Formats: sequence, C-alpha cells, structure tokens
Amino acid sequence: MCGIAGAFDVERAFFVLHDLLLHLQHRGQESVGIVMDNFTSIKGHGLVKEVLTEKSFIEGHTGIGHVRYSTVGGPEEIQPLVGYTGKGKLAIAHNGTIPDASHRRETFLERGAVFSTTVDSELFLHYVSIAPFEDSLESVLWALQTVPAAYSLLVLNEDFMIGARDPYGYRPLFWGKYDGGYVLASEDSALVVLGASDITEVERGQVIILEKGKSPKIQKLSVDRPGRFCVFEYIYFARPDSNLGGINVHKARFEMGRWLYKEHKIQADIVIPVLDSGLSGALGFSSESGIPMDFGLMRNRYMGRTFIMPTDRKSSVRKKLIPIPEVVKGKDVVLIDDSIVRGSTMGVIVSMLREAGARKVIVGIHSPPVKYPCFYGIDTATRRELIASDHTVEEIRETIGADELFYLSIEGLIKAVGREDVCLACLNGHYDTWVPEVDSGV
Amino acid sequence: MCGIAGAFDVERAFFVLHDLLLHLQHRGQESVGIVMDNFTSIKGHGLVKEVLTEKSFIEGHTGIGHVRYSTVGGPEEIQPLVGYTGKGKLAIAHNGTIPDASHRRETFLERGAVFSTTVDSELFLHYVSIAPFEDSLESVLWALQTVPAAYSLLVLNEDFMIGARDPYGYRPLFWGKYDGGYVLASEDSALVVLGASDITEVERGQVIILEKGKSPKIQKLSVDRPGRFCVFEYIYFARPDSNLGGINVHKARFEMGRWLYKEHKIQADIVIPVLDSGLSGALGFSSESGIPMDFGLMRNRYMGRTFIMPTDRKSSVRKKLIPIPEVVKGKDVVLIDDSIVRGSTMGVIVSMLREAGARKVIVGIHSPPVKYPCFYGIDTATRRELIASDHTVEEIRETIGADELFYLSIEGLIKAVGREDVCLACLNGHYDTWVPEVDSGV
Amino acid sequence: MCGIAGAFDVERAFFVLHDLLLHLQHRGQESVGIVMDNFTSIKGHGLVKEVLTEKSFIEGHTGIGHVRYSTVGGPEEIQPLVGYTGKGKLAIAHNGTIPDASHRRETFLERGAVFSTTVDSELFLHYVSIAPFEDSLESVLWALQTVPAAYSLLVLNEDFMIGARDPYGYRPLFWGKYDGGYVLASEDSALVVLGASDITEVERGQVIILEKGKSPKIQKLSVDRPGRFCVFEYIYFARPDSNLGGINVHKARFEMGRWLYKEHKIQADIVIPVLDSGLSGALGFSSESGIPMDFGLMRNRYMGRTFIMPTDRKSSVRKKLIPIPEVVKGKDVVLIDDSIVRGSTMGVIVSMLREAGARKVIVGIHSPPVKYPCFYGIDTATRRELIASDHTVEEIRETIGADELFYLSIEGLIKAVGREDVCLACLNGHYDTWVPEVDSGV
Amino acid sequence: MCGIAGAFDVERAFFVLHDLLLHLQHRGQESVGIVMDNFTSIKGHGLVKEVLTEKSFIEGHTGIGHVRYSTVGGPEEIQPLVGYTGKGKLAIAHNGTIPDASHRRETFLERGAVFSTTVDSELFLHYVSIAPFEDSLESVLWALQTVPAAYSLLVLNEDFMIGARDPYGYRPLFWGKYDGGYVLASEDSALVVLGASDITEVERGQVIILEKGKSPKIQKLSVDRPGRFCVFEYIYFARPDSNLGGINVHKARFEMGRWLYKEHKIQADIVIPVLDSGLSGALGFSSESGIPMDFGLMRNRYMGRTFIMPTDRKSSVRKKLIPIPEVVKGKDVVLIDDSIVRGSTMGVIVSMLREAGARKVIVGIHSPPVKYPCFYGIDTATRRELIASDHTVEEIRETIGADELFYLSIEGLIKAVGREDVCLACLNGHYDTWVPEVDSGV
Repeated sequence: MCGIAGAFDVERAFFVLHDLLLHLQHRGQESVGIVMDNFTSIKGHGLVKEVLTEKSFIEGHTGIGHVRYSTVGGPEEIQPLVGYTGKGKLAIAHNGTIPDASHRRETFLERGAVFSTTVDSELFLHYVSIAPFEDSLESVLWALQTVPAAYSLLVLNEDFMIGARDPYGYRPLFWGKYDGGYVLASEDSALVVLGASDITEVERGQVIILEKGKSPKIQKLSVDRPGRFCVFEYIYFARPDSNLGGINVHKARFEMGRWLYKEHKIQADIVIPVLDSGLSGALGFSSESGIPMDFGLMRNRYMGRTFIMPTDRKSSVRKKLIPIPEVVKGKDVVLIDDSIVRGSTMGVIVSMLREAGARKVIVGIHSPPVKYPCFYGIDTATRRELIASDHTVEEIRETIGADELFYLSIEGLIKAVGREDVCLACLNGHYDTWVPEVDSGV
Repeated sequence: MCGIAGAFDVERAFFVLHDLLLHLQHRGQESVGIVMDNFTSIKGHGLVKEVLTEKSFIEGHTGIGHVRYSTVGGPEEIQPLVGYTGKGKLAIAHNGTIPDASHRRETFLERGAVFSTTVDSELFLHYVSIAPFEDSLESVLWALQTVPAAYSLLVLNEDFMIGARDPYGYRPLFWGKYDGGYVLASEDSALVVLGASDITEVERGQVIILEKGKSPKIQKLSVDRPGRFCVFEYIYFARPDSNLGGINVHKARFEMGRWLYKEHKIQADIVIPVLDSGLSGALGFSSESGIPMDFGLMRNRYMGRTFIMPTDRKSSVRKKLIPIPEVVKGKDVVLIDDSIVRGSTMGVIVSMLREAGARKVIVGIHSPPVKYPCFYGIDTATRRELIASDHTVEEIRETIGADELFYLSIEGLIKAVGREDVCLACLNGHYDTWVPEVDSGV
Repeated sequence: MCGIAGAFDVERAFFVLHDLLLHLQHRGQESVGIVMDNFTSIKGHGLVKEVLTEKSFIEGHTGIGHVRYSTVGGPEEIQPLVGYTGKGKLAIAHNGTIPDASHRRETFLERGAVFSTTVDSELFLHYVSIAPFEDSLESVLWALQTVPAAYSLLVLNEDFMIGARDPYGYRPLFWGKYDGGYVLASEDSALVVLGASDITEVERGQVIILEKGKSPKIQKLSVDRPGRFCVFEYIYFARPDSNLGGINVHKARFEMGRWLYKEHKIQADIVIPVLDSGLSGALGFSSESGIPMDFGLMRNRYMGRTFIMPTDRKSSVRKKLIPIPEVVKGKDVVLIDDSIVRGSTMGVIVSMLREAGARKVIVGIHSPPVKYPCFYGIDTATRRELIASDHTVEEIRETIGADELFYLSIEGLIKAVGREDVCLACLNGHYDTWVPEVDSGV
Repeated sequence: MCGIAGAFDVERAFFVLHDLLLHLQHRGQESVGIVMDNFTSIKGHGLVKEVLTEKSFIEGHTGIGHVRYSTVGGPEEIQPLVGYTGKGKLAIAHNGTIPDASHRRETFLERGAVFSTTVDSELFLHYVSIAPFEDSLESVLWALQTVPAAYSLLVLNEDFMIGARDPYGYRPLFWGKYDGGYVLASEDSALVVLGASDITEVERGQVIILEKGKSPKIQKLSVDRPGRFCVFEYIYFARPDSNLGGINVHKARFEMGRWLYKEHKIQADIVIPVLDSGLSGALGFSSESGIPMDFGLMRNRYMGRTFIMPTDRKSSVRKKLIPIPEVVKGKDVVLIDDSIVRGSTMGVIVSMLREAGARKVIVGIHSPPVKYPCFYGIDTATRRELIASDHTVEEIRETIGADELFYLSIEGLIKAVGREDVCLACLNGHYDTWVPEVDSGV
C-alpha cells in the first residue's frame, strides 16, 4: 500500500513531487520521501504536508517520491531507497511486494553482500549492482526481468529515470507530459489535478525510459504473464476520480452498490452510507432498490481524541461519525460500506445506530469477504487479522451485532467492475506466483 | 461565533471540558481556553486537540471553557477571561456580542477603571466589581440584569458557577447531569455524546446557579424581552445532530431543501451537494423534486496546501473537493449549498463543475441572502464582506458564473424551521436592541 | 530581579530591544516581553533567543522590553504590562518591588477596580487611570510620586516614553543616544555593546521624558530620599563589564577578593575559583595573598541532564563543573565564590574537591552572609530559604562540609565597592521604607 | 572528530550510553546515535540532550553509541552504522578515518556490492560480510586486520561487543567495569564521571572481546606498527580532566604554556586567557613568566545571535566574550590560546582588546602552526582552510592584527607533553601510512 511519483525535467521538481504525493496521500500516510537526481533527499515519518514543507525545499528538475502506508523501522527504511552500486548511485521508489524476497536476499548475503534495510525493494539495487553489464540502464532492465512481481517501480540516477510495471500489472502506474518534461504517478487523478497532458496508463510489462536530452523510449519486458490488476484498487484503495484501466473508480463502486441489491433484494426504510467510504456504493444501492438514502451518520468536521470513554466507546469511529437519531429512530436501515476488515469498526457503527433508535440494522458490503493474505502489496500484517479468513458470514454478523449481513459475490464484483483481468487472490486464494506457505486459513 | 462549556463537581473536569469543547469545535477554531475554580488555566491559539493535550492536564473538579472563531490580539484576549474584582476573583466565558459595548466601556474608563483587553466580555467583570452588593453572587446577578444582550454566559469563582442566557435568547445553552455533578454546553449534542443525562435547554432569561454542596437554583432575570433565537444556528452554524428549541438541525436543513424546491421548480438531471455543508439540504431538494442526487464532488480525505497553482486555482476549495467528470459530463446539475458568504468559494466550485464537463450549472441556496451585519455574535468583520449586502441576486449569479441562482425566501425559511421566535436581523435589517449606525447597506 | 530596556525613535526597534534584552539576559531568564508604541507585542516564557526570534519580528520605531527572573502564573503576567486606562492605553516595564503593594491594591478593589494580574507593577496603571489630570503625561508623573519605591520604570504610550528611577535609586537605569533616537537599559554595558553614545546613568528620583518630535526633558521627582543602591548588583547580579555609579563591577569583585584576604590571612597551597561566579574575587584574593591560583574546577562546555546519579550526585553542579584531580590532589585549597544562597551547591563542590583528593577545603565568600529578606526587587521567595538567615557561620561550614569558612564583613564590602549610599537591608535588616512584618529571622 | 561509547550487560544501557556520550559531547556536536544489541536505535542531528531524551528511551542491557563533529548527508549517514551481512546483522561505531577508503570501496563495487552511505566506516561491514569465515567473531577480527588505520572501533551484534584500537593507536579508547558489566569510551574522564571502576586504556593493536555469559577476552592484532597517538587530543580536543597515555590533559596544556614562555621571554603587563580554551596554557605562561594573569575577557553567560551588527562585528566571538576595559586600558597584554585555525576568531579578539584600550596586543599560541591535512580523524575539510598551511607567522600576525605573534615549537610541544610516540603529521607532514596526494601545501 504505497504511492509513487516521478518528475522528469520540470521546473522546481520538489513542488511537482509534493503535489503529486499529496494527491496520492490516500495510498500511504506513514512516511514520505523525495530523492532528486543529485541525490539530495527529504524523508520523514508523517504526512506529505508535515514532511515536505516549504522549508524543506530542495533544488532540482528531476526526482522521484514515495508515500507509504506502514513503515517499519527507522528513517533508513523510508523510500525512495538510495544505494551506491557498481553501476553508480541509484534511487528507487517501489509500490508492490516481492513474494519470494527472503529467498532472494539469502542468496545475496551468501556471496558477501551487505543490506542496509529490511525492505524487499532493496533487492532491486543489488540486482543492478551484479548485473552482467557495464551500462547502468542495461543493468536496470536486467534487474526488472529478474524480479517478475509485484512492482510498479521508479528508478532514478543522474542520467535517466525509469518507470516500469511488472508483467502481471498488479499495481497501477500512469505517465504524462508536464511543463516541457514528464511526470509519473500511481493514479491518473494525481496527474489530472496537477494539470498534466497526454496522460497514459503504463501497460503491464512496459518500461518507460526517460533520458536527458532524448525522447522517451518505451520498451516491453520479454517475460509475458496474464493480466492481474489488483481489484481492491477499485473497491476501496484508489481515489474516486481515478480511472484505472479506463474504468472510473466512483462509477465502479456505484455499480458494486447496484449489483449488491440485484443479488440481495432487501426490504428497508432507508439506506445509510458509511461516510465517506460507502457513499458511492450506497448511492448505487439506493438507485437500484428505490429505497431512499438519508444521512443517519454525519461526519464530524473536527476530530480529536476524547478522554471520556464509557465502556465500548473506545473506537475512534465515535469521534468521526455522528448518528442523527431523528433520521434512524424506529426505522429499518441498510448500512452500506465498501469492506469489513476486522469488524470492530462496523460493530461500533451498528451499536451507534441502535442507540440512536434504529429498529433493524442491516449491513450490506459491496465487495466479497477477504479471506486470504495478499503477497502483492496490500499489508499482510493487517490481513492476518481479517475477520473473514476464519469466520463465516453468520459469525461475522453476530460479531458486529447486525440483524442481517450480506456481501457482493465475486461474480457480481467482476460484473460491476466490467473487467476480468484482475487479481482475486485475497478473495479466492488463487495466487499466480510462488508464495510463502500460509500458516492458517488456506 | 463561540462555544462555551462548564463542568461542575465532576471527576477530572479537565477531561470533561476537553471533550465538550471538542464537540463544540465547529463553533470556533482559533483559540481555546479552560479555567478551573482555583484559577489555574490553559489557553492557546489553535484547535482543542492542539491546546488541551494530556500534557497540559490541570487538576480540579469544576471549571469553564471556551472556543472562539476569531480572536484578535495576544493570548490575554483568549477567553475565559479572569479578573480580580472587589467581589473576588472571577472567570467568565461568553458567547454573543454586546452591541453597545463601546459606550459602556467609555463610562468605566471615565471613573478610573483599567481594562486589560479589547473584548466586550470584560465589561461583565467591571459590572460585578462595581455592583452595589457585598455578596459576589448578588453582584453577578446584578451585572446580568445590567447587560440585556447578547449573551450565553458562564461565570465561575471558588464558590459557584453560573450559566445564563440573555432575555432574548440569542445564543443557545444547555445543561445536564453528569458524574454526580453538572455540565453545561452551547449545544445539546455535546452533552449527549459525553453521556450526560437530564439534558435541558436553558431558557432565555434563565440563570442556573450551581453552588458547592447545594442543589442547583434556577432564577429568572426580571427584564422581559421577545424571543429572538439566531436562525443561522439552524442554517449552518450548529452541528446536524443538535436539537435547538426542540428542532433537529439536520431535519431543519432537509426541510429547507424541500422548501427550496417548492419555491423553485427547477428542471435538471442531477442534484449535487456541496460536501459536507449542503448534504442535508440537497437530500431534501432531491427528495421533494425527484431529481436524483449524485456525488459529482467528492471530498478529498487528505488536504494540504499545493504548490502548483494554475491561474484561478488558488482556492483551497480545489484541494478539498474532487470533481468526478464521469458524474457530471454533459448534464444539467443543480448544486445545493447552505449559504453564500463572499461568493468566491462558490465561483471556484462552479468553474470546477464546468471544467468537468457539466452542461448547465444551476445553484440553489437553502437560506435567504444575508444583507445586514449581525451585532449579536456572528463575526461582523466577515459580514461586511457579504456579497449580498450590495449586490442583487442577478449580480451574484454573474459573479459566481452560474447559469441560474436561486435562494430560499424568509417565509420559506420560517416554515422549514417551524419556529417564529427567531432573529432575522441579518436577513431583514430589523434589530431589537440599540445598534451602532451601519455605514452602508441599511 | 529583572532587566528593562527601551528604544525610542530608532530603526527596527525590535532588533534593538532584542539586543539590549540579550545583553540583560543575566538579570532574568524565565520570561521575555516586548511592547511597541502601537501596542503590538511579543511575550513568552523562556530566553530572549527563544521568544524574540526573527520570525516574531514586529514593526516599529519605539518600544519597551522586559526580562524576568521568576514569573508566576500564565502569560498574562509577563511584562511589559499593558492596560486601557482613562488616560489611554499604556505599557509599563518595571524592575523592582513595591513593598506595600497589597495594601494599595486592596484600596483599589474597594472602589470597584478590576485587576488582571497579581503583579505589583499593575498598580502603576491604576494610579494613572485615577490620576486627577486629563493629560496622560501629567498622570504618569503623579503616579510616580505616589509610589516611593522600589522601581526603575519604563512607561510607553503612543505619544511618549518615560524612564524613571525611584527617589532611593534602588535599581539601576541608564540611557544614551542611538541611531538618531534614544535607548534605555538597566545596565550601561548593554548600551555600550549596542554601540550607543552619550551613555549616562539616570539619577535616583530622575524622570526622563521622551516625546515624539521634541527634545528629551529631564525632571526630578519632588519627593527626596537617601541614596540606597542595591549592593548585590556589585556582588553577583550585574555583568562584570558594567559600571554602576561609575564603579566597574569586575574591579569591585576583585577588590572584594582582596579585602577578603586582608580580613582573613589564610594559609593554603592554591586558590580555586568557582567558575565563573568566583573568577574575579579569586584573582583579587590570589593577588593580595600571593597564593597561586589554579583551575581545580574546569567548566563543562556541554551540559545536560545525566540519568545515572549515584547518591548525592543529583546536583546540576556535577555536570557544570569538572574537578581536575591532578590539580588538587594532596593540597590545601581555598575555594572562592561570590555568595552562598542555600548552601547545597557549595556542599556538592566541596565534596567534589575532596573526592578529587584535596587535603583541606577552605571556603572564602567575598560578601557578607545574607540574613534578611529583600523587599526591593530580589526574589524573596528564594531568600526565605537563605541558609544564613537562621544559621551561624559555623553551622553553615558544617553543612557544606568545609574545613574552614569565612565571609567578607559589611565594612570590608563597603571599602571594596568604595561607595556608602548602598542598600544593605538584606545584610543588616535596616529597611528604609515600610515593609511587611517578616515571620522569622528578624 | 568523534566520540564512541559502549555499554555491555548493564541495567538500562540507554541511560549509561546517554551519560557517556554526554561526557564525550565535546568530541562531536552534530549528530548522535545509539544502537542496542537488538538493533533498536535512536539517531538524530543535534546534541545528546536533544536527541537522546527520556521520551526516546529504548530498552536493553547492551548497546553502542556515537557522537560526530561533522555529518554530511541525511540521517542514514549517522553512526553507529547498521548492516545485514552474510555473518548476520552488525552495528559499528568508528572514531578515526581510513586514508585509502576510496580505493577499497571501488574494489567492493566492482564485485557487485551496494553501499548505503558515503561513510568510510561502512567498509568494515563489507569486510565482515566477505570474510573467509563462517563465524561472525572471526570475521570481525579478520576485518580489523585488513584495515590498518585509523580507528578506535566498537562492533556490536546480538552475541558480542568488540572494542579495538588500530596498531598505531591514533585515537584513544578506554574500558572499565560498571554495574556488573563493562563500559567503553573514547576518554577515561567519561568513565570516571559515570562511576566506573578498573578503568584501563585499550592499548594500540588491542581487541577487547565481550561475549554474553563469558569473561572478557583480550587479543592483540598480529600487525605491528609504531605508536602514533594524535597530539591534538592534548592540545585542544580532549577534556581537561582526561588522562591519555597516563598524562593529564589540563597539566599538559599548563606545561605547554610554561614551555611557550621558556621559548619566548616576552615583556608585558598582564596575561589574558581566551576563555575557556586558553585558560590552562595562560596559567602556565603566567606561572613561568611571573606576569600576572587578569580576566580582560569575561565569558558571557547568555549567548544568542544579536541583530545589530556594526561593521566587522559579525563574529559570534563578540557575543561569547566580554572585554573589560578597566582591565586592559593602557596595558601591554599577552593573549594566550591553544591554537589558531582560520585566524578570523583571533582577529576579532585582538580588535576587541584594542577597542577596550589595550596599548599592545601580543598573541601567544601554546602549539605549533598546523600546516598539513590530517587523514586520521580530524576533519580535513576544515584543515584545508588552515591559515598556517600557506602563510608565514609574520603574515598570520598581520592578518589577526597583533603586535607580536609566537607559537610553541614542535620540540617544546613534545617536552611539554612528555611523550614521543605521537602523530605529528599535521605539524610536520610526515605520514606513516599511504595517504592521498594533497593538492597544495605539501
């Protein structure tokens, strides 16, 4: 769960990268980094606006950046990673995960390498350093061939910037023209808001090569694999105004809401979206069902930790969402959200609606239950705690205290998205690469 | 535009006041203060969560607090104000404005008084000090009689806490039981979320007297005046889950949306709410008109200042709201919001929708144009910049670049709220007290 | 224990006041404030360099400032104090203490005044407000007559700045020309370092009146009193390069060291100064006695709190001073310092020297024992803890663990300073004004 | 210019390392780091007290730490460095410089290694990783043999801690017993102040091996070299209470002052030390010459940047030192300091004394001119700016504006220190190892 951005040959690239990363902030809030082509850099834990301030401005026309969801360890683990290799100094920004990273790392250590981080992405630097070429560009391409998945990757040195997607296309990547140069970002919406033109999706297996004073070159990795774009980008990860594979994310969620009702013809008085994650789906559900939507849960403009916490009120949900008793009192409500992770948040929301007087609380989720770990870029540490991995829908319903609970089917999801070349591994357990043995649930 | 809170005889009053002020944060974001009954205090510019941290915890069972929208001057101007009077040390937290404050202040200065702030609220301390009574409680009541409007006020000393609303009832105030003691707050929702019981609206002209070791006393000010509750609390100021005068705020806004359509039977393809302020009204408008609502503007979860700013893109609106071209392309849209202040924000939103491909942008406002300054607690400095004070609706439409613009009428507003004892001075220029001459627009 | 500074009609007065207060930082380290003649201000707890940063720069040509040793209460208690009086807005910066402040305050409260601080200095504002004159300048002069001691005071409004010393002259004050205007400061050295010219001591009972567009006026208060300059300014309070009453402070301390030996003809191997406070005195003692000085205690360049603290090592002295065993091993040492306050610091130093191998540790103090509280500006809260107020010299010697302990006599002190019009109240208990009854020790 | 510290098997090693590094703070003020044996770490730019706060406490009984004078690059360059090698994870703290580091690094890069920093110390990690042993301890010893100079080094992993000095003994290192375990530090004084016992100097070429649950082992590197302890540790780098090679640093400086007079029998009225660096030497000079010492320059207790800066007053020296005109007026003064780096500081001091009225300003330096770069641990970047590298003594005298200038000879220095096995490379250009060609001055 990361976002990556690149700026090539533009004025004040720091500001451009700042803006792109700001628009990708939803992809990662724990750490931010920028490295310029002279390898000056800014890195820090926290949000883009906290780390990349005007005071931390660094000069330069070309650079890459990274936001990350969960960063273990000290500041040295924050991307972009920088290394001095036999082919020169190099910086990389990586979105995705290498499933067999630990085996690959072991091999390097046996031959006397020194790793400076625990991050799987550091492997790319070592592959470049041992690549059987003098030329650094050749070496990078060789490294990309050597690691089949999962990556959307930016590589930078003093001479060139490379943007690449693995042959499966697990993670998104876009590029466009800007200010006489080029910009790259995980989502097209970041490029749109910046004001870039000729915005194009980097295809799976494609490598964009930007060299100073030359036209961009586009190359294709020789390895071929089936398309496996992460379906969770549509469900909850990407911004609603992004268009991934030509499909608008808000629209896709609206359709998921519609297909959810088509599969579950529920009776209720009102549809209530969980703000903001369930908004698009709830609208689709209401539109298809004819059940009116109302805002039984409003968003609190000013959040903050409260100190007074009666039993069971510990969830931050209670500060984020305000129930409106006048809306829900005595009604059968259908609550719509995009997914259930651990179930605790949904449990609190259901309680809040009951306390506010709802007669019946029915929960509809516009995606299928997530049962298997992801090895391609969604934080597995979190996934291990997934309630659906070892509970039935009925057990989950009991846990969250709902009167009814229903999910969208995998088939419904594919119809709603309108695309079949997606990765469904976390939903059905079918992995397309070697993956570590999972301790439970499979 | 302030929020006030009191905690009387409860465990760790600091935490209780913190939570109440957090729930009142929407009433003021520029400064926060807490004073305990031993007069230890915490004050600062910024949000509740920035000023009232766990580190700044102060001991005590009784205290009052204040959040303020606009605080001029140094930290000494932050409420609650504290003074050493002839009747002892006293702290006050004031929501409202005294229209004839400058005349009253002049009189005091002529007799040798020293003021330490420019805040009108300081007058209460001076009235107490000169009150013709030995007793401090008597002196406070005398001071309340002497200043007819506008105030919801909390007064604190070592022996008692007083909560009072002026005889017109311009500003809201509620009280309830909590943890064996009592709590007061500007809005009932803050008391509800805290978990207080027996929540009651303090009536206009009513004074709640809480003395240590005694039962609460309720007194009525001898001065009688007509009811004049601020109608803007319903339109945009109060939280949607508050119930003021027994009327739910979200429901009132929903009704304003419904009455807006009843008065303006517009043709359009979709209704788009301005998130979050126009959400309730848009729902009412959509419900009454049958025109479907869609989210053509989504909220950006992670805001921050962008550095790259093409012409006319300076507004922070562009970071807060994300237009979804797929939703608005080729459509006639009705955009619903609660009010227009200067018009610049709405102008940017209209531009954004046009850029996203809307065919026609119609703007509906679910309140009447604000034409006159408020002297009872809404920041007049801001009001002077009100676009409606010296522009016709047609001129405003041109300014914001909409195809059509329509407002709710005053009559429609009253019907929607369902209450006639409201102050409409900013809408119709009828003031119930002496007010300074206004330089223009009247 | 405060320092005051004024800048009248100079370029960028903020920077001038910053520099003056920086040079007066030794007179107070707990709070700093600056108020300009348009009453914009900066105040804060901490050092000059922490509060008056380039970021906090405020415009203006005229302003006053204050540093304070011990500031009780919130930021509103930080000087310069500002008040809105019947004679206009006024700011004051006060060095000194009013011994009968509480009686005077009571009288004001009885007639309905409101005080905003607990600081005695606020009384000046109230006297100005009730002064029987229309004119603000007349009113200030009347207030100065009404309060006989102890003050060096700066008063500022939009039209004038006043610098005044009380008729006893307890506290120092200097003025000079600078940059076409005037500057005032508690010590001449601050003005010297700034680069001011025509530096002159304000005489006791003198009032310097600086009005915009006019030449300075010098007036004499009609009340006459004997000269009582605080002798502790020479002993330890003022900077060594200051010249108070024409006497250099370093030289005065050197002379105190010489007179100390004249009174106590001690045998020892080396003289060790306590760095930096005893440096001047130790040199005088060594010079008069012929006993060589050596640095048995060096100063630690980088201090900081240590976490490992064996018994009795809690004192910060152990981080500040480094004993050099090679210097003191097997020697009889005379340790010289300016004064003993509580005795705990000296006790630790004596222990350190013994641990470092000193055979005999003799302590010489180049001032007399402080036995009585000061009501004229030296922090009495601290003085109450004075070890000499209720212990004999022999008892103190035992407490600090020295082999011998001797002090300079009052007569020796006067000879060393070369001036008789000094206040000795804290040494001999003779107060020249009404003072509160002291609970013990008198 | 660094300080290193280790704590092995003690309670709360963080606090022990904090205290040791605090006592070594004079060896480096730009960055601080601590790594524990479980590889949790704290690193940051700034002082020990800023980086190692109570809040940043980390658990553990064993760890190493580092303070550094000049740290280029981002936080990843801060020592101790940590790497994942083929022999496991390792942390190192290094004081010294490897003169041929760039050649050695090139060799590694050619075989596919990746470096993560520009720090020469990282080489140790790579040597360990390629060492022809399975065992990590053996591998570390092999790496130590492979790099002959200059280092005092601490190596840490989960099983052991190693402390080593190179065969020349360029940099100091001490160890002792503490709290049932062991502590190591660059200077003995840090161990003394901590309260360690059995404090012993690690000999050149010696390796101390501390393994969990075993007695310490002491090994000797097989490579033998002549002793070359850095003479600048005595001149200005080490703390005055340290004893290096059994010689007290304060005493050594006192002797340098004595020998300076023996070589230059100057006539003058007073000796003035530059506080605090020239204090010990000035005392020696005064003692040998009989010319009395006086404090014509006092130290300013409260420094800070001043804003008002007349021509030539930009030096921070003017805030640090206060001239006392009463002391120097009309006198011939000998100013004593330990060394001259660029000459600018001394130039300002000479000006200050002239402005204060000195008749003649003679400057005596108690060390020889530094003419050649250091490749063994003193920051060469700074040394390149050394005034003595390309100016005669007469030219330097003119630059600083003194009436006379004299230095101690190399012979005098050796006599004063009383030790011949010292490195004099920066004074005479004789290097004992391969060094890079110097661009000028040799």
